[in-house]
Amino acid sequence: MIERRTFLTALSSFAAIALERVDLRALQATASPDSLIDDLVAGNHILAMEGVLDGMGHISARYPGRTGRFLLARSVAPELVTRDDIMEFDLDGQPVDARGRTPYKERFIHSEIYRVRADVNAIVHCHTPSLIPFADSTVPLRAMYHMAAFVADGVPVFDIRAAAGMTDLLINDGKLGRALAQTLGSKSAALMRHHGAVVVATSIPNVVGRSVYLDMNARVQLQTAALGGTYTSIDPAEARLRMADPNEYSRAWELWKRKLGR
Amino acid sequence: MIERRTFLTALSSFAAIALERVDLRALQATASPDSLIDDLVAGNHILAMEGVLDGMGHISARYPGRTGRFLLARSVAPELVTRDDIMEFDLDGQPVDARGRTPYKERFIHSEIYRVRADVNAIVHCHTPSLIPFADSTVPLRAMYHMAAFVADGVPVFDIRAAAGMTDLLINDGKLGRALAQTLGSKSAALMRHHGAVVVATSIPNVVGRSVYLDMNARVQLQTAALGGTYTSIDPAEARLRMADPNEYSRAWELWKRKLGR
Amino acid sequence: MIERRTFLTALSSFAAIALERVDLRALQATASPDSLIDDLVAGNHILAMEGVLDGMGHISARYPGRTGRFLLARSVAPELVTRDDIMEFDLDGQPVDARGRTPYKERFIHSEIYRVRADVNAIVHCHTPSLIPFADSTVPLRAMYHMAAFVADGVPVFDIRAAAGMTDLLINDGKLGRALAQTLGSKSAALMRHHGAVVVATSIPNVVGRSVYLDMNARVQLQTAALGGTYTSIDPAEARLRMADPNEYSRAWELWKRKLGR
Amino acid sequence: MIERRTFLTALSSFAAIALERVDLRALQATASPDSLIDDLVAGNHILAMEGVLDGMGHISARYPGRTGRFLLARSVAPELVTRDDIMEFDLDGQPVDARGRTPYKERFIHSEIYRVRADVNAIVHCHTPSLIPFADSTVPLRAMYHMAAFVADGVPVFDIRAAAGMTDLLINDGKLGRALAQTLGSKSAALMRHHGAVVVATSIPNVVGRSVYLDMNARVQLQTAALGGTYTSIDPAEARLRMADPNEYSRAWELWKRKLGR
Repeated sequence: MIERRTFLTALSSFAAIALERVDLRALQATASPDSLIDDLVAGNHILAMEGVLDGMGHISARYPGRTGRFLLARSVAPELVTRDDIMEFDLDGQPVDARGRTPYKERFIHSEIYRVRADVNAIVHCHTPSLIPFADSTVPLRAMYHMAAFVADGVPVFDIRAAAGMTDLLINDGKLGRALAQTLGSKSAALMRHHGAVVVATSIPNVVGRSVYLDMNARVQLQTAALGGTYTSIDPAEARLRMADPNEYSRAWELWKRKLGR
Repeated sequence: MIERRTFLTALSSFAAIALERVDLRALQATASPDSLIDDLVAGNHILAMEGVLDGMGHISARYPGRTGRFLLARSVAPELVTRDDIMEFDLDGQPVDARGRTPYKERFIHSEIYRVRADVNAIVHCHTPSLIPFADSTVPLRAMYHMAAFVADGVPVFDIRAAAGMTDLLINDGKLGRALAQTLGSKSAALMRHHGAVVVATSIPNVVGRSVYLDMNARVQLQTAALGGTYTSIDPAEARLRMADPNEYSRAWELWKRKLGR
Repeated sequence: MIERRTFLTALSSFAAIALERVDLRALQATASPDSLIDDLVAGNHILAMEGVLDGMGHISARYPGRTGRFLLARSVAPELVTRDDIMEFDLDGQPVDARGRTPYKERFIHSEIYRVRADVNAIVHCHTPSLIPFADSTVPLRAMYHMAAFVADGVPVFDIRAAAGMTDLLINDGKLGRALAQTLGSKSAALMRHHGAVVVATSIPNVVGRSVYLDMNARVQLQTAALGGTYTSIDPAEARLRMADPNEYSRAWELWKRKLGR
Repeated sequence: MIERRTFLTALSSFAAIALERVDLRALQATASPDSLIDDLVAGNHILAMEGVLDGMGHISARYPGRTGRFLLARSVAPELVTRDDIMEFDLDGQPVDARGRTPYKERFIHSEIYRVRADVNAIVHCHTPSLIPFADSTVPLRAMYHMAAFVADGVPVFDIRAAAGMTDLLINDGKLGRALAQTLGSKSAALMRHHGAVVVATSIPNVVGRSVYLDMNARVQLQTAALGGTYTSIDPAEARLRMADPNEYSRAWELWKRKLGR
């Protein structure tokens, strides 16, 4: 019975994603590169301000109107990113015009997910402290709060040791990026053992919103687990209905941009 | 014996509320709409500053001298609310003069509680991270600290799934608002499963005070539970005596308003 | 053997306190009232800045050179205290020259402790969130960190219900103040069930230092307990040696005063 | 089998340290004393900004080009350190030219580690609240996150009571410093029971980076343990590969220095 529900959920999640894509990919496709770059810089600063990223981690966006290209900062702390730091990459993770700028070693996280997930227009790779417990533990992340309802679809854990044996733990080539993308599958987020997480969405505001509320959801679950009772979580059917709103994070995005301006 | 005490407590809580109402409803009834709107804007900003609200959630106030009307901001993050954002609503949740402003989807939380709770003049709907564990868990919230003594009356949990089956988890019509108001009953606060909480009081300073100290009380209980021993909580009779002071939060309210001014 | 050690510890703690008094009471006795009032105002602001006090709670100091008098702000949030708010009280908790200023209801915490503790020159009453779990729980506070070594002497818990039955939980008369002072005994701090704590010392910098590090010690123990193993704490004999330094908190006090100046 | 792996790990850790030393000791050796003092002042301020140090604790650096000398501030809170506070010490912990400045009592932590660890060029002594639980508990610190991979080598606990009986818990002479250095052995960090920790590295940026991420790693483990499941940690072989990058913390260091400038 669980299996049947899981199957139906997967089906309808896919439908919801497909539906959402209509609105937001269109939106992002028509955005000028200039305003997209502004949003990408803002996304970097918001994720630092909200404690999702510290000196490490990154956010990327698919390049509107150019097949197989995405935008990502040079290797610099997210809080310091400016427009001039934004580089263009192809789906092999190669910079199109580096102009002496050093790329992040882990850009293959982005390139390999964009390659296989046509519905994804923006990606965050983070090491948020609240998420790592669920990456390292046997306790699975659950959907505790409706702004992170997408968690109800499941958040798989990528174990680099199982995939590639002893490594330096970084996703620093295409092969490791592909293994991570395979673990992510059609989900909205994956955890990375002893490392962090990757979060995907249809637009920059949505991937920032998901990252912020994934953090809050994890903090809530950590507290709930320590309470000592048992607890329930959002049903996949509820999550599907909640996620049907393509502008779920717009009110928060407006706030975050205003706070940056101060 | 427990049952008898519970019954007596309910009785005397009601008496305490009735008593408190005399002072503070009178106060709010004589307030000019102008100063009430100032307090409502301040309440929005204080709840954001104190971490009770983030980009989501809202605070409303009953309109002084107008039967069946209340004030609530348009759909905007609490921290950004200005006087021009404050809209007037009737008890069906309909805006009186919208002037193009979009209302919050969940305004029915407010309208349906004002309809049945004549003692309530101000309402907060929040998603404070410390409260959600108690909304999702089998462990009940208890009164750990005297500034949140009202918790000793009990804080019921509203489960939207039990009330309405599979939904998008939002209170976006009058029927759901009525179901929530029914769960709240005569209490000062109710939790909402996988969602957050609603807090009510006789005035804006009191509902802000209750929301801030409900958060602190929840954080204290989370820590106490994780200690591993057993713990006691405030007796309903103690709570009744503590809540007899109608200006319980005035010193804190003065501080919060001063901090906003900086 | 435990009992004998406890007895010897009590003896030598007393000796240490007596020793410390020589230095610091002398210091405070020679301080001009003006510089003492400056320190009392600074103490209020530091305790707010460091999160020991929020809008509630207070800090007092014995009046240098006047038998049976102490200084304490009028009823106002600690962060807002100015020189003009500082009032003088006798050991019955009566204001000497109120000039229309409203005193704190709980000033009897201070008056009754000064009456019986000649070694105490400064007192903090706080509701620090980290301390309330230990006030409400069966798990005793233990000395985890050497800057709070005084905890090794033991921190008794005052239960107002055991002392006076059903109350509004406040120490608002001399009788309740005396009961609290009796529970405190010769210790440096006592917890108050469902309420908070009282901390005493030989000077304003020392009581501020003890309050800040009591908070840190409690947070450390909360985390340690949640780890799931067993843990050790500072021995009373170690605490005695550590507390022999009468200027233990001077480096921190210098920092806190500098931070206020910014 | 465990033993064999441990042995091999120790061997290769040593190799990794030796390798890293080539790069970074060279770097530090060629730094002018002026820029080293700038970095030491910045290190003090960064560790305060990041919450690793409060009013207490210290950071030192080996003096480039002078055998047996190191630099450490006079006894002052780290956040307040200026260039003029930096003093020079020999390996007996004696100031070379005190000019009336009072040294830290615990400077012997630094002198005795520099004496026996030729690979160490910078040392932090801290009381970070997240670390003390692991110093006081039976639960060992484990490597949860790849930016603190060095934890996989093991972090021994120094128990001053076992080493020297009843003390004031401070490392205030050379004998106690030597006992601590012996417990540290060839590791990157050691915990100090009821006290804090010591962290060592090849350069100021590296010891600051290790201290910040040791704190984060500890906070992650505290949360993971409270989740209630079991958890895995980084393998020593993975740690060795991760630590081969001698500039692991350079991106974070750049951010921290920029934040100080604001």
